[in-house]
Amino acid sequence: MKLLTLARDLQRRRARERHGLFTVEGVRAVEELLRSKVPIRGVLVSPGLSGAPRGSALRAALETTGLPVLEVSEREFASAAATDSPQGVLAIAVIPHWRLDELVLPPRARVLVLDGIQDPGNVGTLLRTAAAFGVSATFAMPGTVDLWNGKVVRSAMGALFQRPALDCTWAALDEFLRAHEIPVWSADPSGEPIDAIDAPARLALAVGNEGAGLSPEALARSERRIAIPIEPGIESLNVAVAAGILLHQFRP
Amino acid sequence: MKLLTLARDLQRRRARERHGLFTVEGVRAVEELLRSKVPIRGVLVSPGLSGAPRGSALRAALETTGLPVLEVSEREFASAAATDSPQGVLAIAVIPHWRLDELVLPPRARVLVLDGIQDPGNVGTLLRTAAAFGVSATFAMPGTVDLWNGKVVRSAMGALFQRPALDCTWAALDEFLRAHEIPVWSADPSGEPIDAIDAPARLALAVGNEGAGLSPEALARSERRIAIPIEPGIESLNVAVAAGILLHQFRP
Repeated sequence: MKLLTLARDLQRRRARERHGLFTVEGVRAVEELLRSKVPIRGVLVSPGLSGAPRGSALRAALETTGLPVLEVSEREFASAAATDSPQGVLAIAVIPHWRLDELVLPPRARVLVLDGIQDPGNVGTLLRTAAAFGVSATFAMPGTVDLWNGKVVRSAMGALFQRPALDCTWAALDEFLRAHEIPVWSADPSGEPIDAIDAPARLALAVGNEGAGLSPEALARSERRIAIPIEPGIESLNVAVAAGILLHQFRP
Repeated sequence: MKLLTLARDLQRRRARERHGLFTVEGVRAVEELLRSKVPIRGVLVSPGLSGAPRGSALRAALETTGLPVLEVSEREFASAAATDSPQGVLAIAVIPHWRLDELVLPPRARVLVLDGIQDPGNVGTLLRTAAAFGVSATFAMPGTVDLWNGKVVRSAMGALFQRPALDCTWAALDEFLRAHEIPVWSADPSGEPIDAIDAPARLALAVGNEGAGLSPEALARSERRIAIPIEPGIESLNVAVAAGILLHQFRP
C-alpha cells in the first residue's frame, strides 16, 4: 500500500490493529521516534516542514536514515494528518509488542493500570508521567482508549516509544501480578488519605474512568483504596494530575 | 442583542472583553454555574438536552430560576457551541471581576502564577487543581490563554466560578506580592529538588510555558527555583501534573 493511503488508513483503530502500525505526527514526536528502537516503515513530509530550522534539520536527518521519505503536497499531507495545524512530518511505525511473560521488573517496581480512561490526552499524559517516575509498565484495561491513537501518541511525548505499554485483559493482569507478587492499590476519593501510608516494594496503581470512577473489576482486585486529600466542595482531580501525585509520592 | 447571536459572538476573546460576558457549555458545567454566585444572563437549550435524565433535570431546574431560557434548533445551537458534540445547554454569564486590592489571604496561603501557559486544557486543569489544594488566587500573566475561553471553562470544572482567577500584569503582581509578603518560587527542571524543602507560610508558585519554560519576568522575581526529580532521559512533566505535585507537596 502506498505510504499516503496507509497513513490515512491508520487514523482508524481497526486499521492500526490489522497492519500492526501506527502514525507519529509532528517534529518533536518524530525526533523522539528516531531516537528510539521502534522500527519505522516510512515518513511523509510536506514542503512546509523545511520552513522552520528544526523542521529543516529533521528533514535532513531523515534523508540520512535510509528510510522511505515521501514528499506530498500540503493538501495531501493534511488528508493524512490528525492535527489541525500539521507541522509537515508524519512517520509510520511498528506498534511495539510487549509480552507480559517477558517483562523483567526490578525489586522495587511500580506499574500503572488504566481502568477505562477514555480521553486520549489524559492517557498520553499518564504515559508521560509514568515514564517520569520510573513506572516499569502501563496496562490499558478494557474500556481505555487505544494506546496507539494519534492524540495519545502526541500527548505521551515519546514515552510510548521507550517504556512498555500494552492492552491487557483482567485475567492476564491477574496472572502477571501474581507471578511478580504485586498488590493493587486504587485511587479512590473515598479511600484512605495517602499522607501516612508507606508503599510496598512492588505496587500496581489503578486509576479509573474520568466520570464513572473505578470499575467493579478494578475494585475487586484492590488490596487498598487510597485518596489524595483535597478541599471540601471540589469534586475531584484530573486523573493524570492525581496519578502524578501518587506516582511521585510512592516512587520506587 | 439576541441570546443566540450573543452566544456566537462570545466565542471570540475580544467580544468577551467588550461585553464582560463568557459562555459555559455542557450539563455538568452549567450545574456548577447555577450552584455558584456568578450572575447568569440567559441560557440556550436545544431539544436534545431533554434526551438524557440529567439533562432533563437541568432543563426543569432552569425553568424554576426565572432566567431567560431560549430553546433553539440543534443546528442553531451547534452554531453557538464550541464543542463537537454539544450537550444542548449553554449559559451566558458575567465574567467575575476580582480586584487585587480586595483579595483577603489567610495567614498560610498559596497563590498560583501562570506564566504564559497557552494550552486551554492545561489552564483549565491548573485552575481545577489549584482549587483542590486551597490556592487563594490564580494569576494569568501576559502570554497566558484567556481564562474565559470555552475550553478553559470546561476543563476547570467549576473552579473558575468559585475561586479568584484573574488576568494580571507583572507590575500589579509585584505590588500584590509585596503587600502580602509572598515570595515567588518557580518550577524549573534545573532547580533544587523539592524533597528536602519546607515551604514558607505564604508562597506564590510560578509555572511556565509548555515549550519555552519560564519567562525572564518570572525568573527575575523568583526567590527560589524548584524541581520535581524525574527519571533521566525524560524531558519534562505536563505543566498541570507538575503544578499538582508541587501544590500537593506545599499545601498550606
